Amino acid sequence: MASVDGGIGIVEERDFLFGDKPGDKLRLDCGKEFGPVNIRYESYGRLNPARTNAVLILHALSGDAHVAGRHSESDRKAGWWDSMVGPGKAFDTDKYFIVCSNVLGGCSGSTGPRSTDPLTDRLYNMDFPVITIRDMVNAQHRLMEQLGIERWLSLAGGSMGGMQALQWAVSYPGSVKSVIAIATTSRLSPQSIAFNWVGREAIMGDPGWMGGEYGEKGPEKGLSIARMLGHITYLSDESMARKFGRNLQNLKDYAFDFSHNFQVESYLRHQGLSFVERFDANSYLFISRAMDYFDLSEDSGGDLAAAFAPATADFLVVSFSSDWLFPPEQSRHIVGALRKRGLDVSYCNINSIYGHDAFLLETGTIGKLVSDFLRNQFAEVEP
Amino acid sequence: MASVDGGIGIVEERDFLFGDKPGDKLRLDCGKEFGPVNIRYESYGRLNPARTNAVLILHALSGDAHVAGRHSESDRKAGWWDSMVGPGKAFDTDKYFIVCSNVLGGCSGSTGPRSTDPLTDRLYNMDFPVITIRDMVNAQHRLMEQLGIERWLSLAGGSMGGMQALQWAVSYPGSVKSVIAIATTSRLSPQSIAFNWVGREAIMGDPGWMGGEYGEKGPEKGLSIARMLGHITYLSDESMARKFGRNLQNLKDYAFDFSHNFQVESYLRHQGLSFVERFDANSYLFISRAMDYFDLSEDSGGDLAAAFAPATADFLVVSFSSDWLFPPEQSRHIVGALRKRGLDVSYCNINSIYGHDAFLLETGTIGKLVSDFLRNQFAEVEP
Repeated sequence: MASVDGGIGIVEERDFLFGDKPGDKLRLDCGKEFGPVNIRYESYGRLNPARTNAVLILHALSGDAHVAGRHSESDRKAGWWDSMVGPGKAFDTDKYFIVCSNVLGGCSGSTGPRSTDPLTDRLYNMDFPVITIRDMVNAQHRLMEQLGIERWLSLAGGSMGGMQALQWAVSYPGSVKSVIAIATTSRLSPQSIAFNWVGREAIMGDPGWMGGEYGEKGPEKGLSIARMLGHITYLSDESMARKFGRNLQNLKDYAFDFSHNFQVESYLRHQGLSFVERFDANSYLFISRAMDYFDLSEDSGGDLAAAFAPATADFLVVSFSSDWLFPPEQSRHIVGALRKRGLDVSYCNINSIYGHDAFLLETGTIGKLVSDFLRNQFAEVEP
Repeated sequence: MASVDGGIGIVEERDFLFGDKPGDKLRLDCGKEFGPVNIRYESYGRLNPARTNAVLILHALSGDAHVAGRHSESDRKAGWWDSMVGPGKAFDTDKYFIVCSNVLGGCSGSTGPRSTDPLTDRLYNMDFPVITIRDMVNAQHRLMEQLGIERWLSLAGGSMGGMQALQWAVSYPGSVKSVIAIATTSRLSPQSIAFNWVGREAIMGDPGWMGGEYGEKGPEKGLSIARMLGHITYLSDESMARKFGRNLQNLKDYAFDFSHNFQVESYLRHQGLSFVERFDANSYLFISRAMDYFDLSEDSGGDLAAAFAPATADFLVVSFSSDWLFPPEQSRHIVGALRKRGLDVSYCNINSIYGHDAFLLETGTIGKLVSDFLRNQFAEVEP
């Protein structure tokens, strides 16, 4: 690998296709058998001969398989968690074999609503099955088998990535040595369900959505509204106050109009416009719905400790003081349930003003926690 | 008045028109001279001969002049603060002369963007001037003169109503004996500006908006999205959890679709649909923009105590523990500034799970506070 910026260098995307034969399909929570499924993934570092150093990183709603490095020398931006993954970094690619895959339903290489249904030769669009976090995890498990990994040293993710990590611990306890769950929850709160609902209403209410059958352009206004709304929930009131306050954008006084007068308006507008360039509206619908449906304790009548009964992993749980989307209380609920089960769990509530976004920004502090946690985990299995 | 439900009975709307002559127009913050202006108002009780018992109630974003009572025997719903206003109630119509007017820019009788511009004989729509909270207050002051009131015993309002009350105390100190400011703020935070921005994007991004020139139907989808979003900010996470939790709406299991599966989704949908029946989209734009522009300390470089320099009123400030739209901290900021000025201020932070909506729901507790405060105020001026 060529080194760029002292990081991991140039990285490559790979594809794993399964479920193209009847007996090989993915059985989904909705009851359907689904396939073929392509899983787009990237991996960095080397799997050791004992296969004990594999770590799966799980991405959030708008993430993808491209965690670190660049796809070419001219690539302007590195992967979404580049400061966390690379030689000598928290997810140290000199020591660990790091894997990340785009989720089922995604729009960055894995099979999703904008993939072609081989039966009809048309895009799935709204005929794509409504998937769950567990469906995503089951697809990742297929990738694991393909890679010849029997047990992950660790599964790590923030936000929706943390949900997947928790689901892994319950669904495949034998395949999980440890879990790193950051800024996440064991079940989506009604407030989060409500925000998702409004975002989807904006997308599906945009005439450009066309029942999901849009062409190249898509429901850009609706998707940008969903994204702007999301961004408000990712920031804290305090970080907004510090970053923008009531400052005007290139104005000395109010413009007395409805254009972006305030810096915070300009910021949101930019976030909305750039998001529609890189993300698909139908994927947004399906992935946000998967989050709505996530409730680890659903089958145990709300008893989260009972839901964790199968789990055997060690846990590192991290929350952020100003995260009001998945507040610290929800992490403490997870920690309490894990401890009730007698599992080994470390918990850290990081004092941060950055709100939910802190899982992407406070990488110095998270990095130290993750680095130590992984070192201890690896020491227990090192050949 | 005929008594209905032991309340205030049948009430009537009245209109006050001004600004139809050049010298009589309303000078707006944007610099324009505006008129004619109609102010729709209601009043209950009787102005005493000394004219010392008049109280002006100021409504919130989606409110109107109809605070209490019913317009006819067959009227299904009483006014929006009926539990607070009437004989023997907190705003006791046996003792006080209660007035409430629809704000300038509103859609419930006062001149707003859907009024006809006499110069063009067409609806103003987006040619309506971008107004401020101070403009609303200046229009209310004209009504005050018309009613022959020299000083309000009290000005009372929640949310945007509280902003108007605070503005009155600064703009017309000689006309204000006291202020009751509930669940409000001295300036809109960037987070609130952000929510308003997204709501307006939904309205103005709806093709049915037609640049504001819609006919009878209007941008219903956009307006309902703005309202649903608003409702999330009016409730607390806890009240949503208690009221809806993750309960499904008439379903035993997830429907694995995008319809309203959860009770909270069904609730929002209902709120959105019913709002478009009663509120105008352009009014929503102008009134929410007026809120964005509200910053009492703007002219004093952020020094709120300095901004209150002209004020002489006594104050009752009320906040609610779970209000995250205008959190208690913002009320305490107001209280601190008022005390710094040596003004007489009572402050109560009410422990409530109802979030911002508490100002409409916790009327038992608020009623007691208001009743005592008004009694004391009236004792000081009683002839």
